[in-house]
Amino acid sequence: MVKIAVLKETAAGETRVAASPETVKKFIALGASVSVESGAGLLASVSDAEYEAMGASVGASPAVLKDADIILGVQGPDPKALKGFAPGAWLVAGLDPFGQRARVDEYAKAGVEALAMEFMPRITRAQSMDILSSQSNLAGYKAVIEAASIYGRAFPMMMTAAGTVSAAKAFIMGVGVAGLQAIATARRLGAQVSATDVRSATKEQIESLGAKAIFVENVAGIEGEGAGGYATEMSDEYKAAQAELVSSHIAKQDIVITTALIPGRPAPRLISDAQIASMKPGSVIFDLAVAQGGNVEGSKPDEVVVKHGVKIIGYANTPAHLAADTSALFSRNLFNFLSAFWDKEAGEPVLPDDDEITAAIRLTKDGKVVNERLLA
Amino acid sequence: MVKIAVLKETAAGETRVAASPETVKKFIALGASVSVESGAGLLASVSDAEYEAMGASVGASPAVLKDADIILGVQGPDPKALKGFAPGAWLVAGLDPFGQRARVDEYAKAGVEALAMEFMPRITRAQSMDILSSQSNLAGYKAVIEAASIYGRAFPMMMTAAGTVSAAKAFIMGVGVAGLQAIATARRLGAQVSATDVRSATKEQIESLGAKAIFVENVAGIEGEGAGGYATEMSDEYKAAQAELVSSHIAKQDIVITTALIPGRPAPRLISDAQIASMKPGSVIFDLAVAQGGNVEGSKPDEVVVKHGVKIIGYANTPAHLAADTSALFSRNLFNFLSAFWDKEAGEPVLPDDDEITAAIRLTKDGKVVNERLLA
Repeated sequence: MVKIAVLKETAAGETRVAASPETVKKFIALGASVSVESGAGLLASVSDAEYEAMGASVGASPAVLKDADIILGVQGPDPKALKGFAPGAWLVAGLDPFGQRARVDEYAKAGVEALAMEFMPRITRAQSMDILSSQSNLAGYKAVIEAASIYGRAFPMMMTAAGTVSAAKAFIMGVGVAGLQAIATARRLGAQVSATDVRSATKEQIESLGAKAIFVENVAGIEGEGAGGYATEMSDEYKAAQAELVSSHIAKQDIVITTALIPGRPAPRLISDAQIASMKPGSVIFDLAVAQGGNVEGSKPDEVVVKHGVKIIGYANTPAHLAADTSALFSRNLFNFLSAFWDKEAGEPVLPDDDEITAAIRLTKDGKVVNERLLA
Repeated sequence: MVKIAVLKETAAGETRVAASPETVKKFIALGASVSVESGAGLLASVSDAEYEAMGASVGASPAVLKDADIILGVQGPDPKALKGFAPGAWLVAGLDPFGQRARVDEYAKAGVEALAMEFMPRITRAQSMDILSSQSNLAGYKAVIEAASIYGRAFPMMMTAAGTVSAAKAFIMGVGVAGLQAIATARRLGAQVSATDVRSATKEQIESLGAKAIFVENVAGIEGEGAGGYATEMSDEYKAAQAELVSSHIAKQDIVITTALIPGRPAPRLISDAQIASMKPGSVIFDLAVAQGGNVEGSKPDEVVVKHGVKIIGYANTPAHLAADTSALFSRNLFNFLSAFWDKEAGEPVLPDDDEITAAIRLTKDGKVVNERLLA
């Protein structure tokens, strides 16, 4: 019987857990045994008893890892802490392969097959396994809620006996999964919402959510869609035109949410100090890319930075601030992945070497780093 | 020329200001001069320069108060700080007459005519002067935003590739102005909203906002509407039935917002410790009445109290957390009041002794306390 181990996260500020009572139950229904480290779900509002009720055993780390075939994590565990597992065990987690490159070597040496869930290809059959998408979705929601919380005014227009309160103007920069959810949430709250992106295909999406699309037009290099639907870097001409557009638009905004990430590279700078200075005092910027270097000049993870009267915020780990929901979706992503490759006769998941998903997410195998993106 | 003085608030945690650039401009258009204490608007995002641009003089407190005919405040100033004003000057502010009863005597002795804006009668022509209503409106909004901020899950139902996130269940207790805005805001954010009140007339209002009305029925003493549309105290039978209804309903809620206040008395207890214990861990209660003794057992102003895994929050001064908007509306309330009584020939406002509003709000005159509610 294949044994699945669920570890308690050890990274600073991490509150999520890689399995929910729901997915534990489903793994057991597939024929696996599940062992959960005591307290693993506590910060995500899941007690040990809830895991036990679904049939998991709960214990200390050594017992959980002993003879484990599959180790689940939100972030990659310290390689030194990985002991006693079955030879060739899978490590299935968000492994931050570019940021934690040295760790990947250690995972190889330790003899685990490390599978980086953030390398999941953006193809239809892998959508339900995509942790970046599920976590970004809730991060986009959270960014707007926190901006609303710190903002000194209300978002919606209110008609009161004492007169009208104007709606807040919110501008979303970068319209991926997080940006789309930020648009939807800001609209829900009654803000007047505009958005921009480097991919012109998003214009329709922005407008379908009822927001105004702010686009540089007639400039070479505007089309920034790279491999797999991710953004790539733009031409210098485009960058200059974008900065100019932003400068004039941003000066009228109350709320700005930036969401621009380029995989494996520092986040692009979208807002300069001079642009911040053009904004009204009391405005709020939420930088969702702050942990990747930041879209906003001077933003700092987990700090409220005030520049020119503008409050700039952003979390080192946004999904960790909505741990109950993000954990539930993250856990489902892992379950959807493993169950899709479950071989009923073998009683365990099997990853065909020639599968597109295998090639994309497998970092290490048989003691070596094997992923193309890391070897390139 | 009548001189209006705008003081910088001195109460702990108070961030609002009693005049906005907009109302300063309007007072001057009526023929008044306006003098603003330096820094008075700073925490509400209004600079001295903005007041000056509208024609106000800005200076230190003694110069601002010197020969002032009307003194505007959000809260009542320290009577000792009131010096140099014109004899019989009006003090127009939220004076907390029951909570600060001793101060009212001091205002009388100091020779000001103290006008308590929270005693404004709930009549049609005074709606635009009603600070309780304008401030409660934004407080109701803020309560939901803060509950959403501290809650570990999202409010709206989300259909994602990794499955569905359920909508939060929010329950609003007390459907006055704050409660209605709380319902509207929680609905905007996508929560599944229910609400209750002691006044059965609110049932239709709750339902018109798309929320579910939770009412004790067929119990004597249910009709709790007192003078002026405010709630009064209920019969014991009603109280018992309400507690039972709440106990069963509340156990299923993720978010509870309590808003019940009875003027001049401690806030009624709506939620007991046992009822908190019946809620799911991770749930959030926002007690809007926390500064008046609290609707929720164990709630503390400006603290996150965790009981049975439930987070209980509430601000000592909720409107102060949305100072830009609340100040703008508060300022309009004061302007609407003064301008309604403006005597163009006299060049100043005149309060007829036989006016319903005069009788309601006037606390002191000619060195004496004259208000019926304080003398009763």
